[in-house]
Amino acid sequence: MTITPPNAGVYAAALAHCDSLAMPTGALHGLVELGCWIAAAQGQVPPAQLDNVRTVVFAGDHGVAADGVSVYPTAITVGMVHGILADKAGISVIARQHGIHVRLLDIGVDADLDVPAEVSAHKVRRGSGNIRVEDALTRAEAEQALAEGEAIAAEEIAAGAQLLIAGDLGIGNTTPSAALIAATYGVRAAEVTGIGTGLDEAGRLRKAAVIDEAIARCGDRLADPIERLACLGSADIAAATGYMIAAARAGVPVLVDGVIAGAEATMAESIAPGAKAWMRAGHRSPEPGLSFAIEKLGLSPILDLGLRLGEGTGAAAAVPLVRTGIALMREMATLADVS
Amino acid sequence: MTITPPNAGVYAAALAHCDSLAMPTGALHGLVELGCWIAAAQGQVPPAQLDNVRTVVFAGDHGVAADGVSVYPTAITVGMVHGILADKAGISVIARQHGIHVRLLDIGVDADLDVPAEVSAHKVRRGSGNIRVEDALTRAEAEQALAEGEAIAAEEIAAGAQLLIAGDLGIGNTTPSAALIAATYGVRAAEVTGIGTGLDEAGRLRKAAVIDEAIARCGDRLADPIERLACLGSADIAAATGYMIAAARAGVPVLVDGVIAGAEATMAESIAPGAKAWMRAGHRSPEPGLSFAIEKLGLSPILDLGLRLGEGTGAAAAVPLVRTGIALMREMATLADVS
Repeated sequence: MTITPPNAGVYAAALAHCDSLAMPTGALHGLVELGCWIAAAQGQVPPAQLDNVRTVVFAGDHGVAADGVSVYPTAITVGMVHGILADKAGISVIARQHGIHVRLLDIGVDADLDVPAEVSAHKVRRGSGNIRVEDALTRAEAEQALAEGEAIAAEEIAAGAQLLIAGDLGIGNTTPSAALIAATYGVRAAEVTGIGTGLDEAGRLRKAAVIDEAIARCGDRLADPIERLACLGSADIAAATGYMIAAARAGVPVLVDGVIAGAEATMAESIAPGAKAWMRAGHRSPEPGLSFAIEKLGLSPILDLGLRLGEGTGAAAAVPLVRTGIALMREMATLADVS
Repeated sequence: MTITPPNAGVYAAALAHCDSLAMPTGALHGLVELGCWIAAAQGQVPPAQLDNVRTVVFAGDHGVAADGVSVYPTAITVGMVHGILADKAGISVIARQHGIHVRLLDIGVDADLDVPAEVSAHKVRRGSGNIRVEDALTRAEAEQALAEGEAIAAEEIAAGAQLLIAGDLGIGNTTPSAALIAATYGVRAAEVTGIGTGLDEAGRLRKAAVIDEAIARCGDRLADPIERLACLGSADIAAATGYMIAAARAGVPVLVDGVIAGAEATMAESIAPGAKAWMRAGHRSPEPGLSFAIEKLGLSPILDLGLRLGEGTGAAAAVPLVRTGIALMREMATLADVS
C-alpha cells in the first residue's frame, strides 16, 4: 500500500516561485516552504489558501491507566469529551480563532456516553486492554479501527478538507503512543517516554518500565504493524492512523500534533510507506517520543512552545503560519514587478 | 527616565487564572503566558483581545553601505519603500492576514522620495554617516530622531494601539544594529555580526571588521547611550528606539522583530531602564546579534523559523500566537466549570 508522493515538479516550481519574490533569497524560507508543501499537495503554484482546515479529535480510554501511568483518573476523559462538545476546550478556542472545523468522535471511551449519536458513529469498543498484561485490541478490532479512520477521513475530505489534523483525547494515551514509537524504532521505552500530563521522574520511569514489559510480552508479533497496533495501541490511535493513511492516499496534507499524533504518523508510515511525505509537524512538545518520531519521519516542527495538551492544539496553533506561507506566495510582489 | 513595570499583581493573578483552566497545570504555558504578559500590561484578567495591533516601518539608509557591508545596493531601499506603499511587501501580506495596521515612514532614506507627504512627516535627514569613518548622526539629530519616534508612538497610541511593532527597511541596517549591540554589551563585532541579506563568511568578517573600526573610532563616547546612537546608529534606528521607549512609558506592549529591533530594544533599555519589561521577542532570526540581545534582555522568542527579511515580518507572524494566549484565557472552561 505504498503512497504516491506529492508532485515533485510542482514542489520545485513552487520553490522557484518563492525565489522570484521581492526579497533576499531564502529570507522567509521557513514560512514559504510550508506554502510549497501545500502547492505540491494541491498540484498548483501558487497554492489555494486553506479555507477548510478540519480537526477530528479521536477520544478513547486506555486500560494501562490502571497501572498508574497518568496523574489523572480515567473519569477525566468523559469530562474532556463534554468540554469539547461545549466548545470550551483548548482545541475549541484555538480552532474558533482560526476558523478550523472540529469534530469529536468517541472511538474507544470506556463509558456509554450521553452524547449525540453521530459522536459515537465510529465507536470500535469501550476502552482498550491493559497493554502491560494483554493486547489492547484484537486483530479484528485493529483492522476495524483502521477502516473507521479511513471512513472518517473520507467524510472529512467529502466536506472539502484541504488540511487535516488528528487530535487526541483520553487519559493514559501517551503510554501506548510511546510504546508504539519504541517498538517501531527498536529503542528502550525510557528514551521516548515523557511525563504526559505531569508525572515526576520516578513516575516517568515506572511508566517506561510498564512499556518495556508490554513490548517484551508481544515479542516478534511487533514486526507486523497491524499486530503492533493490536498489541500496544488502542482503538482511537488505530483509527487516527487509518485517517492519516487515507488522507495521504487521497492527497490531502496532514499537520501532526503531539506525541499521540507522532505515534499515529509513525504507524501510518509503517503500514503505508510514503505517507509521511503528506505530513508536517505542527510543533515540538516536551514529550521525547514526539521529537524522536518526527526526526525519524524527517518532519521539522513549526512551533516549539512547550505545549503538551493534546486535542490537536499544537497543530491548530500552527495553522496561521502555514496560511502565511501560502499568502506570501499568492500576494507578494515579484522581483520582476519591482525592477 | 526609569520605566514603571507592568503590574506584577495582575501578572500573578493572570497566571493563577491560567492554572484554573481545565487542563493539566502548565500544559499550554507557552501560549497563555503571552496572554499573562498582555494582562499585566492592560491591568486586567482576562486581557482584552488585541484587535488593534500596529506596525510602523522605519525606513532609512546607512552610509556604511558604501563599505560593501551588504550584497544589495542602496537603490533597493527606494524599491522596498514602494513595495510597502503598494501593499505587496512581505509585511503587507502578513499584516493583511492578521488585520495588523502598517504605516511606512521615511525617517532617513537617502533620496527625496515621490511619496505622500505624511510618509515623510517625521524625516530626520537623508541617509546617515558612514560609521566606519564618521558619526552616523549629530547629537542633535539623534535627539531629534528619538523625539520623532516618541511622537510617532503617541500617534499610534492615540489611534488605539494595543500592541506595537517596529519594522525596519533600508539596505545596510544590520551593520549599525550589530554595532550598537556589540558596543552596548562590550563584545567583539564578530560575535554579533550576521550575514544580513546574504553575505558569505568572508563578507561577514569584513562587515565585523568595519564595525570594530567604528567602535574603536568612537571610544569612550559610547558609554552614553544617546552618543552611542549618534556614533553608530542611524536616524531610523534612533527613531524606532524613541518609539519603543514611548510605548513602554505609556504602558503599551511591544513585540520585537529581528536584529534591527533587537538593537532598538537594547538602546531603549539603555536610555530608559525597565523598558524591556514591556517587550517580548516575536522570533529568533539567524542574525547572532538578535539572539545575543534578546538573551541579554531576557526575552524568549515565540517563533524560530529562520526568518530574516525584516520589515516587522517575524513579529507580525507571531501575533496570532499572542492572540491565542489571550483567547485561551478568555474562552476556555475552568476546572470549576467542569467539576
